[in-house]
Amino acid sequence: MIISSKNNSHFKFFKSLKEKKYRQENKLFMVEKPVVIEEAIEFVPEYISISEEAYNENKFEEILKIVDKERIFIFSDNLFKNLADAVTSPGIIAYYKEIHRDFNENRGKFLYLDDIREPGNLGGIIRSADAFNLDGVIISPNSVDVYNPKTVRSSMSSIFKVPIYFMPREDLLKLDFNILATALSNSTSTRDYEFKDKDIVVIGNEAKGVSKFLMENANGYLNIPISESVDSLNANVAASIIIYEMMK
Amino acid sequence: MIISSKNNSHFKFFKSLKEKKYRQENKLFMVEKPVVIEEAIEFVPEYISISEEAYNENKFEEILKIVDKERIFIFSDNLFKNLADAVTSPGIIAYYKEIHRDFNENRGKFLYLDDIREPGNLGGIIRSADAFNLDGVIISPNSVDVYNPKTVRSSMSSIFKVPIYFMPREDLLKLDFNILATALSNSTSTRDYEFKDKDIVVIGNEAKGVSKFLMENANGYLNIPISESVDSLNANVAASIIIYEMMK
Repeated sequence: MIISSKNNSHFKFFKSLKEKKYRQENKLFMVEKPVVIEEAIEFVPEYISISEEAYNENKFEEILKIVDKERIFIFSDNLFKNLADAVTSPGIIAYYKEIHRDFNENRGKFLYLDDIREPGNLGGIIRSADAFNLDGVIISPNSVDVYNPKTVRSSMSSIFKVPIYFMPREDLLKLDFNILATALSNSTSTRDYEFKDKDIVVIGNEAKGVSKFLMENANGYLNIPISESVDSLNANVAASIIIYEMMK
Repeated sequence: MIISSKNNSHFKFFKSLKEKKYRQENKLFMVEKPVVIEEAIEFVPEYISISEEAYNENKFEEILKIVDKERIFIFSDNLFKNLADAVTSPGIIAYYKEIHRDFNENRGKFLYLDDIREPGNLGGIIRSADAFNLDGVIISPNSVDVYNPKTVRSSMSSIFKVPIYFMPREDLLKLDFNILATALSNSTSTRDYEFKDKDIVVIGNEAKGVSKFLMENANGYLNIPISESVDSLNANVAASIIIYEMMK
């Protein structure tokens, strides 16, 4: 059955998931890249929406096999356009249960993202964390939504592979871990510091840097040695260089 | 005098500079961030366009001082909107002469960008090159336009500080330099390779990687050691990690 009415409740439901509020309410997020859906095959989507055209062309046969039929919804091409976040959609969207977890680790190396705001930076950092086998990424509650479609897109399939945690910055201090803030002055160069188990490196907000609270309460300070004529590196680049050094 | 007609020749001229074709014809590019115009103070813009509102509010007094009056053009707010590339413009645009140069170096460390396509990646790589004092960035003719407003924006003011060169890949081989292609297999890890004077590292296209021509003709091969489960790093991240290692 092809859904073609704007008043259809499934249409309204899937459309609402483009908004953070409804994603959170339903604990779901969307993935729009077929290659990512295929790579994350051990995660079974809760639902699939597919355009009439893609369905008729049998384009995503393999993906449709992994989901029970009653969880697959076919939409007229006209309606489907309203479900996609990407400017050009290949015609399929998978909806997954949220995948973040509680932090119960007592060893490993992690990043703490202290109010990262750009979806592309967050997704890129997750991709680099995966590339260098970082043990996980801890995200402050005021960071951009990790389930934002743009974040998911730029993480490629890494969002399924890197352990993701949420934690208020105050709670970081209660952990038996070494909290290292990035700071331009009075800090050790990443070229000299020997990263070790139980290090958590704090990456600051794109405009404001690390929060005053974590600046005052960190156990140590790190810098990436850059030219004085440059204010800062891009947050994704800075985090990725730190992960590269952490996992040496 | 405030220009308020769409038929005004200055309006048409500045509007045309949003397109690559006309930028190239006139050898000009635009900078939209007041802070960048201020930081690049030793470069005098050829022209300035300013919105009526910004002009009346005396917002950019310091910038207007560096340019002769006859090179400053005030546009009605309605017209000015059509001159800006950025979604939100602070009301001023500076137009500069192209700043790339001929490659006449006989020492130094460089990147060669082999058909980089994303303006944000190119701008980001230039920003990282500046941060780590790389000697310059050489760009293939089919890469995205370095004077694209998005490239300029994401380079911050680094586009004025990093030597930029254009060169067809065939000409790279005529240089007395060591050409290192990035390749996942049969290559030396960036963690082990000792970068030296006269190294040029080739960064490939976002989708296709390094061109067949440079793959076949390089003097050496490098990899950033990443997990097998990850296809690649973001091009800006990969280039930035390499620059970080090159300038150790």
